[in-house]
Amino acid sequence: LRRLTEFERLQVVLVSTRNPLNMGAAARAMSNFGFAGLRVVNPFEEAFREARSALGGRDVLAKAQTYPGVAEAVEDCSLVIGTTTGRDREIHHPLRKPEEGAPLIRARLKASKVAILFGSEKRGLSNDDLSHCHWSIRIPTREAHGSMNLGQAVAIVLYELARRPLTAKAQSKIKPARSGDVERITQLLLEALSASGYTKPGLATSTKEKVRGLVRRLQIPAEDAQLWMGILRQVLWKMRDSEPS
Amino acid sequence: LRRLTEFERLQVVLVSTRNPLNMGAAARAMSNFGFAGLRVVNPFEEAFREARSALGGRDVLAKAQTYPGVAEAVEDCSLVIGTTTGRDREIHHPLRKPEEGAPLIRARLKASKVAILFGSEKRGLSNDDLSHCHWSIRIPTREAHGSMNLGQAVAIVLYELARRPLTAKAQSKIKPARSGDVERITQLLLEALSASGYTKPGLATSTKEKVRGLVRRLQIPAEDAQLWMGILRQVLWKMRDSEPS
Repeated sequence: LRRLTEFERLQVVLVSTRNPLNMGAAARAMSNFGFAGLRVVNPFEEAFREARSALGGRDVLAKAQTYPGVAEAVEDCSLVIGTTTGRDREIHHPLRKPEEGAPLIRARLKASKVAILFGSEKRGLSNDDLSHCHWSIRIPTREAHGSMNLGQAVAIVLYELARRPLTAKAQSKIKPARSGDVERITQLLLEALSASGYTKPGLATSTKEKVRGLVRRLQIPAEDAQLWMGILRQVLWKMRDSEPS
Repeated sequence: LRRLTEFERLQVVLVSTRNPLNMGAAARAMSNFGFAGLRVVNPFEEAFREARSALGGRDVLAKAQTYPGVAEAVEDCSLVIGTTTGRDREIHHPLRKPEEGAPLIRARLKASKVAILFGSEKRGLSNDDLSHCHWSIRIPTREAHGSMNLGQAVAIVLYELARRPLTAKAQSKIKPARSGDVERITQLLLEALSASGYTKPGLATSTKEKVRGLVRRLQIPAEDAQLWMGILRQVLWKMRDSEPS
C-alpha cells in the first residue's frame, strides 16, 4: 500500500509529443511498472486521441491530463527532472545517470510529487523546458547514435525507478518548495532585476532561463517560500515607489 | 576497443516477430547502446522488409541475418538467455532479474558469443524456444499488467548490459558557497530589507538570526555567490538612489 502511494506521486510529463505510438508506449511502460500519473503538455491533439485508443496503457491514458505549458504541468511538484540523451547541449544543471537519479527521486516521492519530463521525438526538451528542471537524467547512449526512441527512454527510466528496493534512504529533512511557488519567486526576481536596472527592459529569453536556473539551484524550503515572496514584493514596491512619475 | 569486441559478441535474437515497428525499435536500441548482432528467426517476411526501411537502427537491420529456427540462430553461442515478463509459465530453469543477469552475460562475452532471445509480441517465447536457453531474464513488471512492448523490453535489457557498474558517487555535486560569501549575502539582504522598509530600523538580533537562517537554508552554490551579491548591490543602489536626500 505504501509503495502504491509513493508510485502515485510520480508524474510522467510528455512535452510536445507528436507520435501516438510513442504516447501509447509511454503509457504502457507506466502501467507495466505501476505508475499512473501521466501529464501531457501541448500534445498534437490528433496524436493524443489516437493514443487513447491504444492497447496496453489504456487506463493510464484515460486519466492523463493536458496542460498548456511545462510550468502548469509541474506546479504541484517539488522536484522536476529533465531527461536527455545528448552530449552537445549546454545544460547548466547536474546530469545524472538513471541509477544515480532513481534513489534521489524515490526518496523525494516519500513526501511529495516529482515530475519527470520527456521531450518531443525530434527535438527533445527545449532550453525553456529544461529551465524548469532541478537536474536531468542522461541515459548513457552511444555518441554516434545517441537519440533514443521516446517510448524506450520512458521504459528505461521507469524500470530504474521501479526496481529500487523500498528502503532508499531519506536524505534531507527540509521539505522543498513546490514548483509553482519557485516559479512565482522567479517571476518576482525577474521584475526586481528589471526594476533595479540590473537587466535591460525587454529581457532576452536566455536571461530568463539563466535566472530560472539560478533560483532553482537555491532549493528554497517550502516553509520559506511565502517569506521570500513577501521580501521581493516589498523590494519591488520600494523601487517602483521611487520611480520618477 | 576491448569493450567494442565484447559488445560485438552479443547476438539479439528476435523470434517470430510480427510488427516491423518493434523490429525497428529493437534495432534502434541496439544501435543506441552499441550492439550490432541482430538475428531474426522465422520473421514475417513483409515485416522484416518494412523494418529495414526504418530510421534509427538502419545499420543494425541491414546486417541482420535470418534463420529458420532458434537452434540455428544460437548455434555459435556458448550461452543462450531467454526473456520473459510472465509469472504463470512453467519455466524449468533459473529466472534472473536484468541486473542479476547482466554481469553474468558480460563476463561470458569476454570470451564467447552470447544470444538473448526475445519472443513474439503475442505469445513471447514458446516452451520449445525456452528449451534452448540456459536461463532467462525476467523484467519485474506488475502482476496485473506484465506484458511489455517488445522494443521496450529489448531496450531495458540492453541498457542493463551496457551501463557500467555504478561508480561511487554522483559526479556532479553542487559545491556550496563558502561561509564568508554566505554571510556577505546575508548582510546585503539585511540592508535591502531595511532599505525597502520590510524591517524597521534598529533591527532586533532575533530578526538578524532569522534572516541568517533563511539565507543558509538556501544552500547557495559557490558558482552563484558573486551573482547574488551583484544583484543585491544593484537593488540596494536603486532603492537608495531614490531616497529623499
